[in-house]
Amino acid sequence: MTTRIPVLVLGATGVVGQRFIRRLARHPRFEIKALVASEKSADKRLRDACAWRLGGEPYAGMGDLVLHTCDPDRVFAPVVFSALDTEPAREWEPRFAAKGALVFSNAAAFRMDPDVPLLIPEVNPDQLALVAEQRRRRGTAGAIVCNPNCTSTVLTLALAPLRDAFGIEAVAMTSMQAVSGAGYPGVPSLDIMGNVVPFIRNEEGKVEEETPKMLGRTTGGRVVPASFAISAACHRVPVLDGHTESVMVRLKGAPSPELVREAFAAWSPPAVARSLPSAPPRAVVLHEADDRPQPRLDAEEGGGLAVHVGRVRACGLLGIKFVALGHNAERGAAGASVLNAELALAEGLVS
Amino acid sequence: MTTRIPVLVLGATGVVGQRFIRRLARHPRFEIKALVASEKSADKRLRDACAWRLGGEPYAGMGDLVLHTCDPDRVFAPVVFSALDTEPAREWEPRFAAKGALVFSNAAAFRMDPDVPLLIPEVNPDQLALVAEQRRRRGTAGAIVCNPNCTSTVLTLALAPLRDAFGIEAVAMTSMQAVSGAGYPGVPSLDIMGNVVPFIRNEEGKVEEETPKMLGRTTGGRVVPASFAISAACHRVPVLDGHTESVMVRLKGAPSPELVREAFAAWSPPAVARSLPSAPPRAVVLHEADDRPQPRLDAEEGGGLAVHVGRVRACGLLGIKFVALGHNAERGAAGASVLNAELALAEGLVS
Amino acid sequence: MTTRIPVLVLGATGVVGQRFIRRLARHPRFEIKALVASEKSADKRLRDACAWRLGGEPYAGMGDLVLHTCDPDRVFAPVVFSALDTEPAREWEPRFAAKGALVFSNAAAFRMDPDVPLLIPEVNPDQLALVAEQRRRRGTAGAIVCNPNCTSTVLTLALAPLRDAFGIEAVAMTSMQAVSGAGYPGVPSLDIMGNVVPFIRNEEGKVEEETPKMLGRTTGGRVVPASFAISAACHRVPVLDGHTESVMVRLKGAPSPELVREAFAAWSPPAVARSLPSAPPRAVVLHEADDRPQPRLDAEEGGGLAVHVGRVRACGLLGIKFVALGHNAERGAAGASVLNAELALAEGLVS
Amino acid sequence: MTTRIPVLVLGATGVVGQRFIRRLARHPRFEIKALVASEKSADKRLRDACAWRLGGEPYAGMGDLVLHTCDPDRVFAPVVFSALDTEPAREWEPRFAAKGALVFSNAAAFRMDPDVPLLIPEVNPDQLALVAEQRRRRGTAGAIVCNPNCTSTVLTLALAPLRDAFGIEAVAMTSMQAVSGAGYPGVPSLDIMGNVVPFIRNEEGKVEEETPKMLGRTTGGRVVPASFAISAACHRVPVLDGHTESVMVRLKGAPSPELVREAFAAWSPPAVARSLPSAPPRAVVLHEADDRPQPRLDAEEGGGLAVHVGRVRACGLLGIKFVALGHNAERGAAGASVLNAELALAEGLVS
Repeated sequence: MTTRIPVLVLGATGVVGQRFIRRLARHPRFEIKALVASEKSADKRLRDACAWRLGGEPYAGMGDLVLHTCDPDRVFAPVVFSALDTEPAREWEPRFAAKGALVFSNAAAFRMDPDVPLLIPEVNPDQLALVAEQRRRRGTAGAIVCNPNCTSTVLTLALAPLRDAFGIEAVAMTSMQAVSGAGYPGVPSLDIMGNVVPFIRNEEGKVEEETPKMLGRTTGGRVVPASFAISAACHRVPVLDGHTESVMVRLKGAPSPELVREAFAAWSPPAVARSLPSAPPRAVVLHEADDRPQPRLDAEEGGGLAVHVGRVRACGLLGIKFVALGHNAERGAAGASVLNAELALAEGLVS
Repeated sequence: MTTRIPVLVLGATGVVGQRFIRRLARHPRFEIKALVASEKSADKRLRDACAWRLGGEPYAGMGDLVLHTCDPDRVFAPVVFSALDTEPAREWEPRFAAKGALVFSNAAAFRMDPDVPLLIPEVNPDQLALVAEQRRRRGTAGAIVCNPNCTSTVLTLALAPLRDAFGIEAVAMTSMQAVSGAGYPGVPSLDIMGNVVPFIRNEEGKVEEETPKMLGRTTGGRVVPASFAISAACHRVPVLDGHTESVMVRLKGAPSPELVREAFAAWSPPAVARSLPSAPPRAVVLHEADDRPQPRLDAEEGGGLAVHVGRVRACGLLGIKFVALGHNAERGAAGASVLNAELALAEGLVS
Repeated sequence: MTTRIPVLVLGATGVVGQRFIRRLARHPRFEIKALVASEKSADKRLRDACAWRLGGEPYAGMGDLVLHTCDPDRVFAPVVFSALDTEPAREWEPRFAAKGALVFSNAAAFRMDPDVPLLIPEVNPDQLALVAEQRRRRGTAGAIVCNPNCTSTVLTLALAPLRDAFGIEAVAMTSMQAVSGAGYPGVPSLDIMGNVVPFIRNEEGKVEEETPKMLGRTTGGRVVPASFAISAACHRVPVLDGHTESVMVRLKGAPSPELVREAFAAWSPPAVARSLPSAPPRAVVLHEADDRPQPRLDAEEGGGLAVHVGRVRACGLLGIKFVALGHNAERGAAGASVLNAELALAEGLVS
Repeated sequence: MTTRIPVLVLGATGVVGQRFIRRLARHPRFEIKALVASEKSADKRLRDACAWRLGGEPYAGMGDLVLHTCDPDRVFAPVVFSALDTEPAREWEPRFAAKGALVFSNAAAFRMDPDVPLLIPEVNPDQLALVAEQRRRRGTAGAIVCNPNCTSTVLTLALAPLRDAFGIEAVAMTSMQAVSGAGYPGVPSLDIMGNVVPFIRNEEGKVEEETPKMLGRTTGGRVVPASFAISAACHRVPVLDGHTESVMVRLKGAPSPELVREAFAAWSPPAVARSLPSAPPRAVVLHEADDRPQPRLDAEEGGGLAVHVGRVRACGLLGIKFVALGHNAERGAAGASVLNAELALAEGLVS
């Protein structure tokens, strides 16, 4: 029995923080050492600082843990999971890295920094090589490893089999995103019940810049982004969990829908990614039914870590269109960071 | 005071039929002579045959009208509004036309027939010229005039200003459609609450073939469809009324978003369309707010006959992207047919 | 043409404040002199300080009005409508009254004060007599007039015909309340989508103490509350507008459901209430259909000022049960205050 | 390892039928021998005859089973689970019983027959004694055992601890019921989205007659129903699964809310019920949080077989009020029948 590695969760009381706690409470390799939250929750027990919003055991059995404020001089661990918002992330994540921690971050603050991996184990495990470059450049013992925005994650995982089988030339993506993507309290019910809100601040730009970075090549300590044209249009819909994405794509060689379906069905991530403790049975699940995937029926499947694709069909504009779906708060947030940390551990970056 | 023209409503008890009744109950030029419904409603009063689902006066004051079965030999009028489903439309609409009626149809049955106008008064009033061709070919005194599928209608009205100002080269459209588009009982609540269903049977094909027909040129008794590439992806979302469409478009001359906004703001339909009794103050309304249009807030505006556009912005793939919205059951169905009949009246086709 | 009386709206940017603005923008007797909001909105134009959430003309045409902070020494009018929360209401409403204003308040702060009318014109216009007592006791030129909590309002209007026809002995009420009752941003979508929340802070107590005060007798400058037993259980449901209430009631003489239906149908409010400019055609509307009233279909009817009752039937416990429904933000808030001000004007209390 | 008992599922394709299949697919004592559905599904494979609406493995691994029509002469087993509607249940359930089967029925057809147990193992296991009486009276080898209506089930389980600790004198119950209670396609989305429908046909009568039968005494081969007054008011709300019930109750001795909470917390069903394979850890779960139980957060807990109670507080009318919640399709349907069959097995009634 291996010793478990102590970890911190920053931003522990929010929608993503709670999912971190639930994932880590019984993790085979990581063990929660402390939970960190904002000033107003400091010194409260978890159960008193927030309402638990997930199923299963309330507070994942950790309701009595007392929350700390964010200060690496007072509470520290070699692995840090960050569910902080962008601004506090910009302040605190580098300080934990400077103290030697590997910080696995959900925040947008450093995703596009050239020396920061924007990592999905199944898609681009080679980006972990940027950690050495980052340590060198910044002179830190630790490093920051980012997972992408939730919408980018779903799109990128759905595109990876097509990149590998054909090569990608152009992508148009329209999203229908769940309210949990906006955190808690997040989207007011008066805004979204029975409605579509065709705007999510900064979301389209994130998808358009993160996706090519993730699907690019890592070489000589830097990432050469993929060069396809891309356009994203993002919308909020009255769904609790699970972002649905309508994707049109132009592929090299103009394969038929049948060949594309075969590529989805045949695709397998690199072996190292498949062997991670939290890896889902299949990272990309192909649906054959006309009307799947659907967020309410499919997003939670396999612990929320699979991306679902379906309705692969001919597109009069770009050649192929299909639907992709993934759990924004698991595959797109908490689960993504945990997978990244598992990959770093497998690759020997965590001591 | 002009005499009002007697009209029939076929399919009077459904979602669209009820909206026909409400629109026609106080129409300045048309007067309901009789309501027609299926066998199982025959000889019942309207109030006993269906539950009224609209606001305002129940049954629009016509709850005591007795329903007839569909038979042009027994109940007839020179103008017929049809809210029939495709199969009954295929059977009955030609029989009313053969008896001399102008049939204004919501059904898909004849929309793509080369001698049938697929008419939006603000976009292609010249397609009414097909009526003469249709009478000639079919040897009928009457004729069938179709309005397009609801999703096609919203897209086409939103594209018309861009066709007129620039010319259209390519269109990608992803829809988020309201449940009322599926009629009543229509979409089960167990399927759609908190969910997205990424499939609406036959919808994408309709959009892809109807839109070019509508935006084409009418010449020599036939329509030359517009030649741009087009792709549609259709989804059902938990919204009551109003289809939202995310549109990416390549325009001739690659205008800036600012020029496109100006084109939307400056566009005006042909004078004959603006003068119709039911014409909305503006057929295409440009929104400036970041997060509009929204179906719950905007679809009903102006009696549900305006199409709303907003979020005009640069698209990394096709040059321009924007959001369009319209009321599927008014602009996309009952209101569309009534406008078409008003145009036919204005053009002297109704005696 | 009479001169219109200048009025203020306190709390102008919220859910209720916006409804005040829309109601008063074209009111025959009142004219908005100034809008008052919190510090953070001060000196902004209405259109910049809040998102307009209602249909019809945006900002009711008043988007350019500049917002003031709350200070009766700097902005004043003889009639003040207050959409303030309880705490600011407790501070500011008396200061406007002290300066001579009649304050028509939605807040809970003073509703149960013995010298404050808790007024519904159709139910207890005689409570306006407390204004003289209030002025005397408090030595103020102005006075505060409260409308009840939204849930209490619907219940009380539904009970008034039964009080008048039979007399009330006991009431059990379970509510299913709309999210707009919690203001904006109010109820997070993550809490209420597809859910019922069986708790609304302080709501049950308000219903249980306000209802008897409203249905009591005013005599000698004070109210003798009605003496029936009452119990309320309050729930939030995923509805936008309109509180539904399941009511069980024991009436004097144990009338049959048929007699109760007749009492509802025959009831007419006092003449002075029926003549008010905003009075709905019927204050209490009896529905005969098995499945009505329903909030989405009925709450907005008649400008949202009617209370709807239906499903009158025998109750094995208390004798009679029925369903009541009313628009929480109109009949239960903005519209209620405006009706109260119209009554005060009709009774000569506004100079 | 014991041999598993072969069972049939009647009505296998519906909302409840699918839950039967999922529950029985891995049941330790029962084994599905055949699935039975209506004529139009006969001879189809399960996966072709219906869309699977539950999470987990599609069709619970039984998608290839071929469906049979209902005919005890052609397909039979000693234990039959029936998810039939009332009318087919009235026809077919007695025929299976006549052939010797124990039929565990969800249908309303025979619930109130004096010789049919209306059984909840935790509440009234002694009603199984009616099986002998039923066999004697009807001369059948088999028998019918009913579980109650879903709404009655939740109420009865919530009342059982209070019956046992205090005795019940009067009950008022207002329900807020999930759409899955109406089956599939069931409630149209146009009817229920953003709405409350204050009517469910026959539901109130079922609650009012079933609850006293279940809480009565079984003596001399018949049930003496409990004699308290009861009134139910039933409503449909936009919730997927889980009926919420607002309960007011008068108890013998007028205990305080604190004593009632203690009674809920201390209550334990009879030992035989606790030992059943599918028995939840606690049949009645007491919540302390102000705003629980909630259907979306609590109904699925423990496989959907617990009933949740909370908000125990003083009631100005009957003494005590509280909220109860249970999963209508599990505790109220499929799970209820399976528990009943497990009890029959434990009591030696299944050979």
